[in-house]
Amino acid sequence: MPEKKSNTPNRRQFLTGAAGGALLASAVNPAAVLAAAKENQAPNVADWSRYLGDGVVENPYGVPSEYEAHVVRRTVEWLTATRESSICFTPLQDLHGFITPNGLCFERHHGGVAHVNPDDFQLMVHGMVDKPLIFSLEDLKRFPAENKFHFLECAANSGMEWHGAQLNSVQYTNGMIHCVQYTGVSLRTLLNECGVSSKGKWLHVEGGDSAGMNRSLPMDKALDDCMVAYAMNGEMLRPENGYPLRLVVPGWEGNLWIKWLRRIEVGDQPWHAREETAKYTDLMPTGKARRFTWVMEPKSIITSPSPEKPVLQKGVQNITGLAWSGQGKVKRVDISVDGGKNWRPAKLHGPIMEKCMTRFSYEWDWNGNPALLESRAIDDTGYVQPTIKQLREIRGAESIYHNNSIQTWHVNEKGVVDNVQTR
Amino acid sequence: MPEKKSNTPNRRQFLTGAAGGALLASAVNPAAVLAAAKENQAPNVADWSRYLGDGVVENPYGVPSEYEAHVVRRTVEWLTATRESSICFTPLQDLHGFITPNGLCFERHHGGVAHVNPDDFQLMVHGMVDKPLIFSLEDLKRFPAENKFHFLECAANSGMEWHGAQLNSVQYTNGMIHCVQYTGVSLRTLLNECGVSSKGKWLHVEGGDSAGMNRSLPMDKALDDCMVAYAMNGEMLRPENGYPLRLVVPGWEGNLWIKWLRRIEVGDQPWHAREETAKYTDLMPTGKARRFTWVMEPKSIITSPSPEKPVLQKGVQNITGLAWSGQGKVKRVDISVDGGKNWRPAKLHGPIMEKCMTRFSYEWDWNGNPALLESRAIDDTGYVQPTIKQLREIRGAESIYHNNSIQTWHVNEKGVVDNVQTR
Repeated sequence: MPEKKSNTPNRRQFLTGAAGGALLASAVNPAAVLAAAKENQAPNVADWSRYLGDGVVENPYGVPSEYEAHVVRRTVEWLTATRESSICFTPLQDLHGFITPNGLCFERHHGGVAHVNPDDFQLMVHGMVDKPLIFSLEDLKRFPAENKFHFLECAANSGMEWHGAQLNSVQYTNGMIHCVQYTGVSLRTLLNECGVSSKGKWLHVEGGDSAGMNRSLPMDKALDDCMVAYAMNGEMLRPENGYPLRLVVPGWEGNLWIKWLRRIEVGDQPWHAREETAKYTDLMPTGKARRFTWVMEPKSIITSPSPEKPVLQKGVQNITGLAWSGQGKVKRVDISVDGGKNWRPAKLHGPIMEKCMTRFSYEWDWNGNPALLESRAIDDTGYVQPTIKQLREIRGAESIYHNNSIQTWHVNEKGVVDNVQTR
Repeated sequence: MPEKKSNTPNRRQFLTGAAGGALLASAVNPAAVLAAAKENQAPNVADWSRYLGDGVVENPYGVPSEYEAHVVRRTVEWLTATRESSICFTPLQDLHGFITPNGLCFERHHGGVAHVNPDDFQLMVHGMVDKPLIFSLEDLKRFPAENKFHFLECAANSGMEWHGAQLNSVQYTNGMIHCVQYTGVSLRTLLNECGVSSKGKWLHVEGGDSAGMNRSLPMDKALDDCMVAYAMNGEMLRPENGYPLRLVVPGWEGNLWIKWLRRIEVGDQPWHAREETAKYTDLMPTGKARRFTWVMEPKSIITSPSPEKPVLQKGVQNITGLAWSGQGKVKRVDISVDGGKNWRPAKLHGPIMEKCMTRFSYEWDWNGNPALLESRAIDDTGYVQPTIKQLREIRGAESIYHNNSIQTWHVNEKGVVDNVQTR
């Protein structure tokens, strides 16, 4: 995270000011402001008020401020064999609310980003159906649309943490997730249009990328809440998110959300695709592997303070973060500042929706002593987010996927935040 | 709107296919698909499946697909004297759901876009307060944050329609609106921090742009639901939307939502700023002008079909659009396909929130005859969106602002859509 310069007397005073006390009461010298205000001369007339700003131009698809250039997805060179099968992570530490801007949604590809011409795009639905059909994008847009907010989390999010605290970052440890509003057609509607055979119990869903990314999806889930989405956050999908069509599988691991979706085949049993045999399985202590572990269980993460967002001073802090559950709605988030000894409920920011991220916040008056910050999510099934120790007792230490354990941040007396595992 | 080429037999057949009938049943020849599928040779394997896609790169702040280059804000050269006091319009016809992506939020400036260095930014709160304070951006981020979805509509949205149907476009007639999730601090919290005098009944809010855009805001509204926002849709405000801080005045006209907010002064009466004397007033038939007409009353617009989105074929269509109310929640949207003679309720897509856009949709089986499409919004106060004739009866024909009348789209037998005023 690039350092920012601060030359304002106000901020300097604030950072080095007296400890604790009433929120912001020491932020400024009231007498000095009053004197300036009485003379009708505001102390904060800055250069940018003296010059005519930029005019409106045709076709300006907007971009962030130059001062926000550090808020970007970031990748790790050594994590995968090639850039075409790589990942870049969402900068959770700089997000607000619960929506991820499209330009910051994490990427995970198996054969790079396919560039699909929407006019030549087709989706085929076939197999155990009465009437196989091919849909153009315009065909799909004629169906009644659904609009749903959902998080999308990679099964490997926090996967590197199975073996102990490694990356000192909230972006790299938890950034394989995003949350947007999807628009598209319910899979139920498309399958009804084709007429599914009573023998049809599974779908084989396949992407149009060079990897032909594909998986098996049980019919019950397909008919429950899946959709084929062409838009996210109000506009068409971005190329790296499957433009012009992707599968949305609410609450289930991201590799099922096939991008550049080209084919859905209905069958009576799973396909045992490579991505559910060689990969995306969980090696258990017995030496056997769990398969078809689709659901992303309740999880939460404090995004600030975090390694990227140190505590700048003593006194009242706004602890904030994100919680989610692939099983339903977030019901409660608890905060601990002493490594899990005591818990207090955080405030949840609505609207709280099914299989969607929920922003939480908690006011913490820091006395300057070292602290261990944790959050734990509880969803409406009653499931409580576990510790890594509890997960390891059941699943051993060889897993990569489905690490939804509690993250501990250590705050030292200088406000520096480190990733630690204490329990 | 640029034309798209279509070379697929499927789409050609679809566009020239037989009239009406079951939804999409004629989209494709099932026998042909079956034959291809039986040979295990999908008919829709395209070029992009044959080549390795783009790899992940460091720092990729994402942008839309090259095929979506037509989805941009657009401006009108002749509308204002200079580009620094101009407007560019949101492409409503291409939006989905109810969120406007940050890159497509309409712009309206009075002195161009100020470029503010967040490290030098200050907000001063002074006047009739016990303790005048200056806040840095970091100070503001320490306060408990609020996250709220709200629409922002310019008082002049649809203003050119007062004198009759003029622009054959939903973007230009209704595009001075956007809807995002804002994150910031409630104005109530900041004012409480400063301690407002019992005599303080008004605020003077001033921007840091070269125009020093400023207005008077009544204390009741400030304490009710206003906020100072630093983020929109999950990331920091864009420069053209007031980076790093703007006022959010839910449900009220856009010119009150001061951008690059630098100063809030508390007083006992309004300031009678230029923007509430010379401008943003409504000239009435008596020759006098209404002042302080802040609330944006219930309104709705069909975004597809629209002049930019013609009807492509007979049969079932998805009529869709957006509705909003500055008074509360959208309770119902009615659709007419015969110019207001008969009305049927549209489906509303949740979550439905206060002073926020709501997406609606309605299935319409078009028989190929000319039609007059209209929508009307009803909010939870019972207010029903009026016709332009009803508005003119009260307010005459000299107004520019606050035109929330019903928009009529004429669909001809070829599916071409025109902006008309029938009543």
